[in-house]
Amino acid sequence: MPHTAPRLQQIEPFHVMRILAEAQALAAAGHDVIHLEVGEPDFPTPQPVIDAGIAALAQGNTFYTGACGLPALREAIAGFYADRLGVHIDPARIIVTPGASGALQLILALLVGRDDEVLLTDPGYPCNRHLVSLFEGRPINVPVNAANRFQLTPELIAQYSTPRTVATLLASPANPTGAILQQDEIAKLLEVCSQSHQQLIVDEIYQGLVYESAHETALAVSQELFVVNSFSKFFQMTGWRLGWLVAPDWALPELERLAQNLFLAPPTPAQHAALAAFSPETLAILESRRQELRARRNYLCDALDSLGLKLLAQPDGAFYLWLDCSPFAEDAEAFAAGLLQDEAVAITPGRDFGQHGTRQALRIAYSQPLPRLEEAVVRLSRYLQRYCTA
Amino acid sequence: MPHTAPRLQQIEPFHVMRILAEAQALAAAGHDVIHLEVGEPDFPTPQPVIDAGIAALAQGNTFYTGACGLPALREAIAGFYADRLGVHIDPARIIVTPGASGALQLILALLVGRDDEVLLTDPGYPCNRHLVSLFEGRPINVPVNAANRFQLTPELIAQYSTPRTVATLLASPANPTGAILQQDEIAKLLEVCSQSHQQLIVDEIYQGLVYESAHETALAVSQELFVVNSFSKFFQMTGWRLGWLVAPDWALPELERLAQNLFLAPPTPAQHAALAAFSPETLAILESRRQELRARRNYLCDALDSLGLKLLAQPDGAFYLWLDCSPFAEDAEAFAAGLLQDEAVAITPGRDFGQHGTRQALRIAYSQPLPRLEEAVVRLSRYLQRYCTA
Repeated sequence: MPHTAPRLQQIEPFHVMRILAEAQALAAAGHDVIHLEVGEPDFPTPQPVIDAGIAALAQGNTFYTGACGLPALREAIAGFYADRLGVHIDPARIIVTPGASGALQLILALLVGRDDEVLLTDPGYPCNRHLVSLFEGRPINVPVNAANRFQLTPELIAQYSTPRTVATLLASPANPTGAILQQDEIAKLLEVCSQSHQQLIVDEIYQGLVYESAHETALAVSQELFVVNSFSKFFQMTGWRLGWLVAPDWALPELERLAQNLFLAPPTPAQHAALAAFSPETLAILESRRQELRARRNYLCDALDSLGLKLLAQPDGAFYLWLDCSPFAEDAEAFAAGLLQDEAVAITPGRDFGQHGTRQALRIAYSQPLPRLEEAVVRLSRYLQRYCTA
Repeated sequence: MPHTAPRLQQIEPFHVMRILAEAQALAAAGHDVIHLEVGEPDFPTPQPVIDAGIAALAQGNTFYTGACGLPALREAIAGFYADRLGVHIDPARIIVTPGASGALQLILALLVGRDDEVLLTDPGYPCNRHLVSLFEGRPINVPVNAANRFQLTPELIAQYSTPRTVATLLASPANPTGAILQQDEIAKLLEVCSQSHQQLIVDEIYQGLVYESAHETALAVSQELFVVNSFSKFFQMTGWRLGWLVAPDWALPELERLAQNLFLAPPTPAQHAALAAFSPETLAILESRRQELRARRNYLCDALDSLGLKLLAQPDGAFYLWLDCSPFAEDAEAFAAGLLQDEAVAITPGRDFGQHGTRQALRIAYSQPLPRLEEAVVRLSRYLQRYCTA
């Protein structure tokens, strides 16, 4: 085997990929697979956004934009913060990126040197810790659980920080739990980060997909932090690969330089399409879809509870449920594999999201229409009965 | 100033950015700026490709694809290698990426650990060495010149390799010189790389834009190397941000894992559009544009030669001329700044491409229609007369 970089050993494969491959094989063999494993709702991009993309292409808008994105889009994002979230952001502090992955890459490339440490929740979104390893930093996986609502606390940050800690990465709403942070909690977390001279990065890619509280941003707490956002989830533009970051002034020249070198520029058709993402027409569509997601969530929480599958976290945002399968199974991966094999329902075993309390946890995405969720519940019920008696 | 990663010191800003900013200011003030500084031709994406992108959007193709790209696109690229270049590549070895930048990121993340060395030409495309620094490797800038036609030789690779050298990165056609490598030269370079247990990476993003020889690929020499390619230049899809890589079998599982973590997936509308990039209709458009680029090149080479601006490298490919301004100026950056100020012609000073023989070199992109190039020559002639007498 030729020489490869040691970092590869830190970057685990997604266990769900085995589930996905098997789900595809089952579907190819004619089975009716219900997909509750993917972090992508079934909604296509709202029509006004698609129309704007088509219009841009028809006009021949196929050239590079600047590395930080179209000025008009940066202004439109600033307008969204002002109108919907009541926060005034200089558009110069908004950098448009190829997906939120691109935004996080830029921030980590800026902050993380060799063996520098970044605190993250365990469980949490796995790509985030892998991106820390990519830049030769050390992801510090801080165990979180129901007691702290699966979010970091000032005490945990203080406990896990060392002189090498350069940043703490939070997500609100979080994946896989749907847990959200309140503004006063973010203020306290920022305070402890500032005291220990680390940067706070807040992943807000599920912003807007909240069901119990108002739509908020950490930028209302302070502008001296990094925020990552995306057009993928709330705006339902997954395949377009477009996100953004908001950074403090001091970081902008270096982030722009990194963007030039890493990406050249974000995709042009997606940027023109995204200009329509903030129109009243699009926002009305997104609001009705948010209501639809809430209805799915409410249905599924009740139905799964009745089956004995209990929630581990309060699912206030995103479109995930984080569930305890310990009454039924020792090993969530075997449980998920069996569910797919026997009943053609695909879900994600907890192991993909970390090491802490994940072996008997499952993530279910409510990314299918209600009738499909009802069918999934029927199948799951049948599977549990068989599983329990076996 | 907060803590940032030491790698930032290795990543220089592009000097052309100052030129670009000034060119924009001049244009905003009503001046008619001729842009010969950007690595992007004036051609919009061919209409059949745009039409395919529009059709895909109209059909609602806005969801994620797999991390390695649409199977149909990977097969279409393999078909292109088979039909146009006579090389049979398993589509599984083709990974579609967000631009060639994405492809190179994946390969370097795989190969380059801390302080591992990668050989590159100096002068060469600056982002490439910056991406090596990004992953904590050491770019080794090997001086090349007219004697070796601005390409690496087996002797140079042997001379600059150390036990830490993990890869050599070539480009053919090269930026900024337009220099190309023959197949027998690539075979010899691969041999010396293999002997010293390093990987050979060949950047073919200007493949197809060749004017004196047949369209070729290093994959015809061997399949045990890495090739980076792009839909940007030959296929004229710059803003869509789509490229690909071809890798040896052993590297595929880890490259896929990296792609999942770094990008999730390449942009979906661009992938559907690119399916039309290999149609006879598109290829006919691209061939007529290649002829147009050749005519521009021939005109400009002769006209600049008459003015006393001599070519440093034989411009057999890409759309760049690498020129010697030493008869006129000590410092190409001052020369370029003056040309922009006095005559509103924007070109790139050599310094952006390296340290070796670049202080009195200029890159001119023949990325504008012939009448604009003729106007640029008139202005340049006036500037040189004034510059010489000053």
